[in-house]
This record gives sequence, structure tokens and C-alpha cells, in this order.
Amino acid sequence: MDPTTKINIPESHRERIVIIGGGFGGLQMARKLSRQDYQVVLIDKNNYHQFQPLFYQVAMAGLEPSSIVFPFRKLFQRQKNIFIRVTEVTSLDAEKKMLQTPLGHCNYDHLIIATGADTNFFGNENIRRHAIPMKSVSEALYIRNHILDDYEDALTTPGYDLRQELVDIVIVGGGPTGVELAGSLAEMKTHVLPKDYPELDVEAEVDIYLIQSGDVVLKGFSDESSARALKNLRDLGVKVLLNSRVTDFDGKLVHLKDGSTIPAQKMIWAAGIKGNPIPGLPEGAVTYGNRLAVDRFHRVQGTEDIYAIGDVAYMEEEDFPKGHPQVAQVAIQMGTNLAKNFKLRLREGKEPQPFSYNDKGSMATIGRAKAVVDIPKPELHLGGFVAWFLWLVVHLFAILGTRNKVFVFLNWVTNYINYNQSLRLIIKPHLPPKGEDNKIFAKTTQGQA
Amino acid sequence: MDPTTKINIPESHRERIVIIGGGFGGLQMARKLSRQDYQVVLIDKNNYHQFQPLFYQVAMAGLEPSSIVFPFRKLFQRQKNIFIRVTEVTSLDAEKKMLQTPLGHCNYDHLIIATGADTNFFGNENIRRHAIPMKSVSEALYIRNHILDDYEDALTTPGYDLRQELVDIVIVGGGPTGVELAGSLAEMKTHVLPKDYPELDVEAEVDIYLIQSGDVVLKGFSDESSARALKNLRDLGVKVLLNSRVTDFDGKLVHLKDGSTIPAQKMIWAAGIKGNPIPGLPEGAVTYGNRLAVDRFHRVQGTEDIYAIGDVAYMEEEDFPKGHPQVAQVAIQMGTNLAKNFKLRLREGKEPQPFSYNDKGSMATIGRAKAVVDIPKPELHLGGFVAWFLWLVVHLFAILGTRNKVFVFLNWVTNYINYNQSLRLIIKPHLPPKGEDNKIFAKTTQGQA
Repeated sequence: MDPTTKINIPESHRERIVIIGGGFGGLQMARKLSRQDYQVVLIDKNNYHQFQPLFYQVAMAGLEPSSIVFPFRKLFQRQKNIFIRVTEVTSLDAEKKMLQTPLGHCNYDHLIIATGADTNFFGNENIRRHAIPMKSVSEALYIRNHILDDYEDALTTPGYDLRQELVDIVIVGGGPTGVELAGSLAEMKTHVLPKDYPELDVEAEVDIYLIQSGDVVLKGFSDESSARALKNLRDLGVKVLLNSRVTDFDGKLVHLKDGSTIPAQKMIWAAGIKGNPIPGLPEGAVTYGNRLAVDRFHRVQGTEDIYAIGDVAYMEEEDFPKGHPQVAQVAIQMGTNLAKNFKLRLREGKEPQPFSYNDKGSMATIGRAKAVVDIPKPELHLGGFVAWFLWLVVHLFAILGTRNKVFVFLNWVTNYINYNQSLRLIIKPHLPPKGEDNKIFAKTTQGQA
Repeated sequence: MDPTTKINIPESHRERIVIIGGGFGGLQMARKLSRQDYQVVLIDKNNYHQFQPLFYQVAMAGLEPSSIVFPFRKLFQRQKNIFIRVTEVTSLDAEKKMLQTPLGHCNYDHLIIATGADTNFFGNENIRRHAIPMKSVSEALYIRNHILDDYEDALTTPGYDLRQELVDIVIVGGGPTGVELAGSLAEMKTHVLPKDYPELDVEAEVDIYLIQSGDVVLKGFSDESSARALKNLRDLGVKVLLNSRVTDFDGKLVHLKDGSTIPAQKMIWAAGIKGNPIPGLPEGAVTYGNRLAVDRFHRVQGTEDIYAIGDVAYMEEEDFPKGHPQVAQVAIQMGTNLAKNFKLRLREGKEPQPFSYNDKGSMATIGRAKAVVDIPKPELHLGGFVAWFLWLVVHLFAILGTRNKVFVFLNWVTNYINYNQSLRLIIKPHLPPKGEDNKIFAKTTQGQA
């Protein structure tokens, strides 16, 4: 691609807002700016929005990827001021107010960085090479295929020790992702695997480990909820190791800091994230956790007309002196606020409003009729069936699109009735014949770290 | 793998029937032999059965792969005499009655070859390298991703001629697969693309070609149905080229035998299939179309205790002197008959029954309320809404599993109401980090020709 090529976006008399990333924050902004007097360009490397809170259900074969992702073009079909470009930003020239992408360069009047966060391996190269992240629906599907493939292999692997590597699963990180995945895999172990693999002694052979560095799971939740989640996990048979830490992993043996080891080929890494800013920002802009320092108006420090929202943004507020939690609610509220400020800007004499986070609470599900919910105002800590039901309702409403809601709901109902997901399918990608260049495949590989 | 390793299947006093391939024929046999006094080993390279008649709907983003495939293990959860092995047969030693697989070798008392058919490129290496086959659900999904990716690229490709390569689609082969795919893509062009890609002049730029070597489409159907299908296709805007033939394709330009060319990067090959027998059979066994010559009892010519059913089998019958059509109905009926013969074998004095095909008719759908159905007895040729509705009912009932039926039905209903599939998602496979060996990925690549 000739670097002087311009990305093909119609000329407009309107100011152009470019949003990088169609996650919770970027998507919310684009939706709020539809039919406004701006030209909005939404750039994402995928053509769909991903509903991250349910990735773990894709990994455990409870939901299809298509039920929790939603194509941008369908969402914006009737919004004529919104342009979608499926590509990646490779660099920023803040002086020229210009982005570079593989499709060409793109000018902006206002730039919104909503690129979210990526897995943080804390510099451990071995772990990066061998652990499995779960930050995209493709990765969740990969985990599913990997687990099912290994059970198939275990059937024909003689010897208890060799089989252990294949059937045991180690999950690192006791946040909501790790807890929800561990809980659902434990239920799969109890209710699905013995029926699917009668030749394996599932009860005796399969272990689900959850490794957590702190002394509680769900840090950030109330003490009550953390304790309840831990009890729920242990009741389901998850081996929770607290105050533990993975020091190394070679793809076969997980090393812990106390010197002990766990033989396992699958280690799922949900132990940390880091901000994912775009290249070309001034050095001073990047702060704790690789996030972008922004003021209360979402403006990135030391820049002009550049904003950041969601997981990639680091904003200090009175109640959040160390920044906001990196969760969907913050991203959505930031997207709403920044869109509102852009709308105010169109009306003379209106001042932008500073962001203030309204914490509606936290929730995590551990298993069937097992969940925890913390609500700050009025302070309330729920558990058991009530919390679980609330979790289902909230997530069902949050999923985009009626079709997706219906399909997720039906999947949940059938799984609830017969404890038996139908989605245990190892559908491998079709690759082009050997020796053949193929752009779909090439794109995919490029996308990898 | 040490070649002396034995695949891990429990020893049994029962005779062992090994079925290779879990398509319509092999699956039917396995189901009919469940709870019978045989040990049944079902070998397939996937862990699921694929419902081939609806592949085209996966390709045009109307259905999810998971709705039309069904995991073997779920199907046989309570059948203790059935063992599933996800692997491929690499060779046969008929003297030792032994198969070789990457998991080890496997003895049999009776061998059923139900390996179906694969795409036939008629020896044209260029076409094999560049054309897209549609003989698996992975390939159907690949077509979907390819089409959507190309539309995204077309948006940023200046120049009518360059865009033509990206947006035009050439389908080769006027059988049911080609006709159904062409019809559904034409409907997608009319009803979906203009809404998703308002920046493209879809009506003027996008062309769907169907190349057919004969002078009719749906050869083998009644003249009335063939004519009706052709009219339906042309009404939908498909450019049907009869008496035409593709002579070459370099990935950018489709060459036809009359010297004309069509600029297109996507050529979908549904022009022919060939039997897919396993290596190691005696030479004389392989006959027309690379199929295995079998007698009326499904026994492969020149072998002992080896049977073939479905697309890979070539059996001459009074009414079918050149073999049966390679369709699902034949495979299912052959599976039923051979299973019955094995059941008769267990009862003293019972003779096996020769196979006789009961042709229930043929059907193909071209678009909404556009289909053709031929019923032989009483001779009946249906078209339009009635045929289309019949097609829906028959296919819905044929899909395995209540969940799949419900999900396919709901997808059809929503697509019918709003002409607007939600599945236009380019979900790329997650690949392991660069430089990393990974068995899932390795397996996938090995599976390619």
C-alpha cells in the first residue's frame, strides 16, 4: 500500500470524529453520535462488536460466538453519518491530525481512542508463548476446541500421568473472568464429560485449578461476595490455590512460586490486562497499566483533539483516585458522556461536562444458581439463586439485538433443563491449499502477536 | 506415533464393526447398530456429523455452523457398544484386517467404508489451487468470511474494474449446490448488501454468475423443474451461462471455453465430486468416479468383510444401471439396509437382503417462495411457494436434534420476516503466537490437501 493513499471516505462539510475500537465505549459513542452533525468513522479490526462478559460461555461450549457478537454494519444500517472501516491503526501523526492504516491514511478533526486492553503477561515470554489468553471471541473458541481436542486425545492415551496433562485445566487469575470460567468448566466436568466420555474416569482424573495471587477471589467485590464465590467454587470441585503465583510454563508443566508444579498442557491466562494505546502518542500520555492519562473531559494528556475512553483511559476522580475499574460500565458511561459533550459543542455557549462514574454494582456467576452481586446504593450483597437470576437478566438485556437475546436465552434454557450443551464441536478453520497465498489467511496471521 | 501402537479401544467378546465416516450413511449405520450385539467403532476426522444440504446457508450467512452439525458423542451418549474415534484412516491391511490411523492401528471383523465424496477438480491444478470448494462446514464458513472480507475491501478500492474482482462471485456447477448457493447469494445481493454497504452501488456492480456445462440446470430433475429453476434464477438476477465451461482460473480471472473471461477473485467450485476411498484397497475395487464397486449386499468387489455405502459406493441396480445418484437418501437407505443385514446375521438361518433404492424424489430451493420438487410416485412436479414450504419442512425434520431444529427454524423465521441475517460476522480463527508449535493448528494444516 502506497503510504500516500487516502482511505476512501466520502468528503463532508461536517467535522470528522474518528473512533478507534468498537468495544463497549467506542460503540456507545458511535451510537450516541448517529444522526448528529458530525461525520463519524468507526475503525475496528473486526466487523463486529464483541460481548466480552460471555466469552467464558463460548469457551465452555454453552454459547455460539455468533450469539454474543453483532455486526457493526447491521447496527448502523440506517445511520448515514457513520462509516465503518475494518482495519487497524498502525500509527498516528498528531501534528497532521492523521492516522495510518493498511487501507490508507485517514484525517480526523477529533480522535477517540477506545482501543481497550489486552492480555498482560507481565513480561514473561514463556507464559506468553504457551498460555492461552481469552480477550476475544476467537480466543474463546480456540479454548473450546483445545479442550475438546485434548479429551479426544486422552481417550487413546494410555497411562494416568500422560492423561493428566491433557485433561487438567489451569486457570490463572481470580477475577470475574477466571472465576466464571473455572465454575463453568467444573459444571461441565460434573454434568457433561462423564456422559460424553464414559471411557474416562472423569471424577478421578479431571481437575480444574484456579490460581490466584491474592488471598481472596473477586478482589474488588465485597468481602462477603468474595467469600461466597470461593465457597461456591470449592463446592463445585474447583481446586482454588490462593496466595499462589505462576512463575513459569513450558506448555506441559505449570510452575508455582512455592516450587510445586502442575502437569497441564492448557493454562488459561486471565491474570491481568494492560492498556492497548495506538502507536505515535506523546510519551507522557501513557501512564499506569499502559493506559492513557486523561482529564475529566476524556482529553489525553499533552495532546489536542485526542480523547480516550474505556479500559485504555486512566482518569482520576475523587472517589477513584487510582483510576476507574476496567469494566464495561465505565466504558459505556464514558462513551455516553463524551458523546454528550460533542453534542453540546454544536450548541453555542454550552460547556462540556466532566465525567463522573456512577457505580451500579458488580456481579459474577459461578455456576447454576450460584452467583454474587454487589450493589453499592443501597448497599446489598446477594448470592445464590437470586443473584444468579439477576445476573441472567442483566446480561440478557445487555446483549445487542433481539435475535441474539432470543438465541442466548434459548441456549440458557436448554442448558438449564438438560445440563448438556450441544455446541461441543471442534470446527476447524478451512485453510487454503498448501503453498497458496491467501489474503484471508494472511490477514489472520498478521493479526497475531 | 509408533506404528505398532494399538488404538485404545476396550477388548470385547463381540465382533467389531468399524465404520469409517460419520456422514449420512455411516451415521445411519451406527445408529441402527446401537444396542446390538456388535462392538461398533465410528471413525471420523471431525467430532460431529455435518448436514451437507444446508452448507450453502452457512456460506450466505443465513445459518450458524453449529445449527447444522451435531456432535457424535452427544448422539451416542447412552449407547455403550459404540466407540467414537476422531482420527483419519491412513492405510488398510485387508489381509490382517487392520487399519492404520495417527492414533494407532485398529483391527476389525467387518469394515464399512462410508467416506463419501470429495471435490473433483478434474485434474486442473490451477482450479484446485484457486477455486473454493464447499464440501465441509469449514469450507462454507470460509466462503462466508471471504465474501464479507471482499465487500469490506471493495469499499476502499477505487475504480470500477478493480472492485469487480472483489464483488462478483462465480459459481461453477448447476446442480443443487450451485443453484441453491447462486439463488441465495442473489437474494443477499438484493436485500442485504444495499443496506449494509450504502457506499457501494450494489445493483450496478455486483454480479452473481452460475456456469453450467450442460444446457439445463438441475440435470437429473424433470424438464419442468429444470426450466422452472432456470427461470427463478434469472428472475433473481443470477447470470446463468449454459453450455459453458471453466477452462482456467488464476485467482483473478475466470477463463471460459469460448475464450471469454470474467474478472473475479472468488470462484466457488460445485462442478463435480469423486469418491473418496481409503488407501490400501485392491486396485480392481475402484471404478467409475473413483467409487468402490459393490454388489447388492454392499460388499466391495474383490475383498472380504469390507463394505461400502453412500457416495463412495458404486452399485448397479436394474433401475440404476449406472449406479445411484450421490445423494443423502441413497446413503441413508444403504446404511439402513446394511445394518439390517448385520442384525439378520445374528439370527440363525437368516439371509442378508439385497439393496434396492426407493427414490422419494428430489428438491432444490432457489429463493424465498421459489423451489422445485420432483416426486416420482405419484409423478408430481411442484414449484413456487408449495415446493419451497415442502423443502423447509423436509429439511427441518432431517436435521438432527431438537435444539438444532429450533435454532434453524428461528433463523429461517427471522430471515423471512426481515430479510436480514445477523450472521455477517468475519470471525477469524485464533492462531497461536508466531514461532510456536501448536497441535490444534498443526492438525488443521495437516488436514488440507
